[in-house]
Amino acid sequence: MSIKNLIFFGLLIFVPISASAHFLGWGELAVFVTAAIAIIPLAGWMGQATEEIAVVVGPSLGGLLNATFGNATELIIALIALNAGLINVVKSSITGSIIGNLLLVMGLSMLLGGIKFKEQDFQPVIARMNASSMNLAVIAILLPTAVDFTSPSITEPTLQRLSVAVAIVLILVYGLTLLFSMKTHAYLYDVGTAEEEGAEEEHHEAPNLPLWIGVLLAATLVVAIESEWLVGSLEVATKQLGLSELFTGVILLPIIGNAAEHATAVTVALKNKMDLSLSVAVGSSMQIALFVAPVLVIAGWLMGQPMDLDFNNFQLIAVAVSILIANSISSDGSSNWLEGTLLLATYTIIGLAFFFHPMIEGIG
Amino acid sequence: MSIKNLIFFGLLIFVPISASAHFLGWGELAVFVTAAIAIIPLAGWMGQATEEIAVVVGPSLGGLLNATFGNATELIIALIALNAGLINVVKSSITGSIIGNLLLVMGLSMLLGGIKFKEQDFQPVIARMNASSMNLAVIAILLPTAVDFTSPSITEPTLQRLSVAVAIVLILVYGLTLLFSMKTHAYLYDVGTAEEEGAEEEHHEAPNLPLWIGVLLAATLVVAIESEWLVGSLEVATKQLGLSELFTGVILLPIIGNAAEHATAVTVALKNKMDLSLSVAVGSSMQIALFVAPVLVIAGWLMGQPMDLDFNNFQLIAVAVSILIANSISSDGSSNWLEGTLLLATYTIIGLAFFFHPMIEGIG
Amino acid sequence: MSIKNLIFFGLLIFVPISASAHFLGWGELAVFVTAAIAIIPLAGWMGQATEEIAVVVGPSLGGLLNATFGNATELIIALIALNAGLINVVKSSITGSIIGNLLLVMGLSMLLGGIKFKEQDFQPVIARMNASSMNLAVIAILLPTAVDFTSPSITEPTLQRLSVAVAIVLILVYGLTLLFSMKTHAYLYDVGTAEEEGAEEEHHEAPNLPLWIGVLLAATLVVAIESEWLVGSLEVATKQLGLSELFTGVILLPIIGNAAEHATAVTVALKNKMDLSLSVAVGSSMQIALFVAPVLVIAGWLMGQPMDLDFNNFQLIAVAVSILIANSISSDGSSNWLEGTLLLATYTIIGLAFFFHPMIEGIG
Repeated sequence: MSIKNLIFFGLLIFVPISASAHFLGWGELAVFVTAAIAIIPLAGWMGQATEEIAVVVGPSLGGLLNATFGNATELIIALIALNAGLINVVKSSITGSIIGNLLLVMGLSMLLGGIKFKEQDFQPVIARMNASSMNLAVIAILLPTAVDFTSPSITEPTLQRLSVAVAIVLILVYGLTLLFSMKTHAYLYDVGTAEEEGAEEEHHEAPNLPLWIGVLLAATLVVAIESEWLVGSLEVATKQLGLSELFTGVILLPIIGNAAEHATAVTVALKNKMDLSLSVAVGSSMQIALFVAPVLVIAGWLMGQPMDLDFNNFQLIAVAVSILIANSISSDGSSNWLEGTLLLATYTIIGLAFFFHPMIEGIG
Repeated sequence: MSIKNLIFFGLLIFVPISASAHFLGWGELAVFVTAAIAIIPLAGWMGQATEEIAVVVGPSLGGLLNATFGNATELIIALIALNAGLINVVKSSITGSIIGNLLLVMGLSMLLGGIKFKEQDFQPVIARMNASSMNLAVIAILLPTAVDFTSPSITEPTLQRLSVAVAIVLILVYGLTLLFSMKTHAYLYDVGTAEEEGAEEEHHEAPNLPLWIGVLLAATLVVAIESEWLVGSLEVATKQLGLSELFTGVILLPIIGNAAEHATAVTVALKNKMDLSLSVAVGSSMQIALFVAPVLVIAGWLMGQPMDLDFNNFQLIAVAVSILIANSISSDGSSNWLEGTLLLATYTIIGLAFFFHPMIEGIG
Repeated sequence: MSIKNLIFFGLLIFVPISASAHFLGWGELAVFVTAAIAIIPLAGWMGQATEEIAVVVGPSLGGLLNATFGNATELIIALIALNAGLINVVKSSITGSIIGNLLLVMGLSMLLGGIKFKEQDFQPVIARMNASSMNLAVIAILLPTAVDFTSPSITEPTLQRLSVAVAIVLILVYGLTLLFSMKTHAYLYDVGTAEEEGAEEEHHEAPNLPLWIGVLLAATLVVAIESEWLVGSLEVATKQLGLSELFTGVILLPIIGNAAEHATAVTVALKNKMDLSLSVAVGSSMQIALFVAPVLVIAGWLMGQPMDLDFNNFQLIAVAVSILIANSISSDGSSNWLEGTLLLATYTIIGLAFFFHPMIEGIG
């Protein structure tokens, strides 16, 4: 058993602890912190189970499975928050996940990998395709926001109709990027997968399908429950911690939801597999921008919640600059420790800005 | 005779139809639609005649002719609309032509060419020079807009003086790009011309100069007339169609004005001549940004119309994101169907945004 | 003695002239103009003295010296203006120095070098590292400005605390870029230095350490004095010249402060040493963005002046577009005269925009 799994089993103790916190009334802060920690190993196993099942069912169906459930934890937390009407938390966690993956995960991978290997190479063609897809994503959230910003008279239903239409375009594009990377131009992406990586590392036997389906179902169920507690305690707990709702949504929640991806991306970067490391970081961002966000818009529309792609201007700026610098750094197909540092510095500055931002509902 | 010319002859029937619509009072909508269709073949022949004449008069004068009259249809429609005081329609059709060429024409070319050829290459050096020129163009329309946006007290005459000064700089730069591409660095651009392309296809004899000058004059005359009818019926007709003036200007008019270029760019892309295809799409955008728009600013100033480079913020954002994604996709010197799809998806999203934008005069 | 030094000695006459102007009360305009001219040779010698001393004390300490005192003139003028409470002049001169180095210096170098050599190559790896660092710099000034713009309720102390925190991050990043370029990846930057260049040109003997320390101290002292007079006469003099404070800060002051760098960058470009030419232009911009600006923020905080990174929106846009087009032009590792022209055209348009901008304190 890998060190990662050992740590994960250790963290499982927080599942009963968070349950006690919830049912015995230890206070919102205790529920929030323990539920947050409990979600980390569960999210890790959900990812692992998805990949193991993907291996068994074959590349096409498996790729689709991976692409659909890869960010399942974020999606579950967001759906629960959406149902609770916490639209701003949902939007914040979307922007935060994109920012976190592009700057924190990619930055740490490039920094630590770059310290060990001086210069690390990866496929510039894929980096540039991803850059263009991320540009499309930022355009897709920029335009509804700009429509709102430039027309004071627009009504929420109009914005939502526009957002749903844009969301459908994004999901179609996401489907086509899968077709591109798995069928028509699959040879470009022949860089190994996280699963192969895991296999190498652990020398384990053929995946046990029923076991992993069980793990997936169990982890999903517990994550749903824990997410309820997390979301329910969020408002009170963050106020007690002195943090704005915005800071929590953009910085804290994504770190919790993406902890497992962080570990994977850094681990493979330290093995000089930068293509794989970037595909985890950038792939996860793309999935959120082109799949999770549009699904949430459509879900919000069906739930009758005023969810749209009209993001707070400041969040939009943060996403845009993250994509700008990530594209600028990754487009040449090579990385070093200073490039990792620049990404982390950008993340720090964005974090500082969100920390000091006296965000008032409905203004920014 | 090519299929294109056959279709064009067929569409000529709309010249007398639109005349009937205008003189017999069939209503503004009928005039608008028939005049719009009648302009398509005329614009096509104006382009063809310009190129035929360019071949006869030699590369230097011919290049200049091409560069000056290449977007003659847009220029004529815009001048008539400008004279009628429809400043917003003029500005919309400038932004719409840039967006349409970069996203719709280039997107369709890359998509259809990419489906046929998997991977298509073109000269990255030229793509990057064009990218930098387009960046200058967006800066030139961004800055007067930003001056207006950041200084509530600015007067229209000041804005117009600034815009005229910027327009002169742009026309100088346009002249220098011609000098660069036709004289000092012509070897970079040795990729064939649309005329050679036509020649190959149709095995036709040496161009008949008097014939083509006649065609050019006749087509120009009729386009002027039809443009009068189009512009005159525009406001009532679009209202009847339930479209905003903005949507008409940004999306509909440019499709009419650029129909011939669309056909050429896609045709040559399907012959794997991406350099030529891009030079039609990007070249046309550059011509509009660096030549047509500045000429209209100076013309407006001479006509006493308040034409300037202070674009509506939302249009500016649309142009900026179009240039961003077009540059990001074309800078690597290679294209595939997914890149074409990304451009078309951006165009769709921009179209949706303009469709839903409840633009109110003087606000956005 | 080189022609440059001859001119510098000639200009020294303006030191006593400006002293007369100041003490004999010739009027603010005379003081301003003569002090401005007197600073040019002094700034040149400060730069030269720093480099000579750097040679003697060895590469590590010397590099640090160069990196710290390279923009000493700008820093001195800015500190004096900051102490006098001219926050807007300080901010303007920061943005103006970045814009001037990226557009005017780099543009002139590429234009004149390109006319002589047709095509000039330089290291694209360094150009891209610099591009990413400049992107970080623009993000660092964009975010505090955006925080202010999107939250009307923010207080100046909060903005200043945010700015000081961001400034500390930038100074750390600046230190790390020095570590990168002088230690861990020094081999990438092995392109000669301005000092070697001077040596070749002038065949001079080993540098005389006490002489140059004397020159440095004397020049620094006189610059300080002259800067006092310059800053003291600035407000009245520019009003007499009919120029806005903004235009003076963004366009005039940086040309004075960077005159020596302009000369060096163009001179080496004409010798086809584009790597060195760009390292002067871009290096100077980076130094201002990552070192001078943060130092001024921290100094302002210690002085009790409300200095922060909340720039006027219009200046921010000007810096952002300068970095955009400079990155777009330099990223391919090759330049020609048209690229130089595009940079100069951008500079001209920005200059026009600042000239016509009716900037009102506290609005833009």
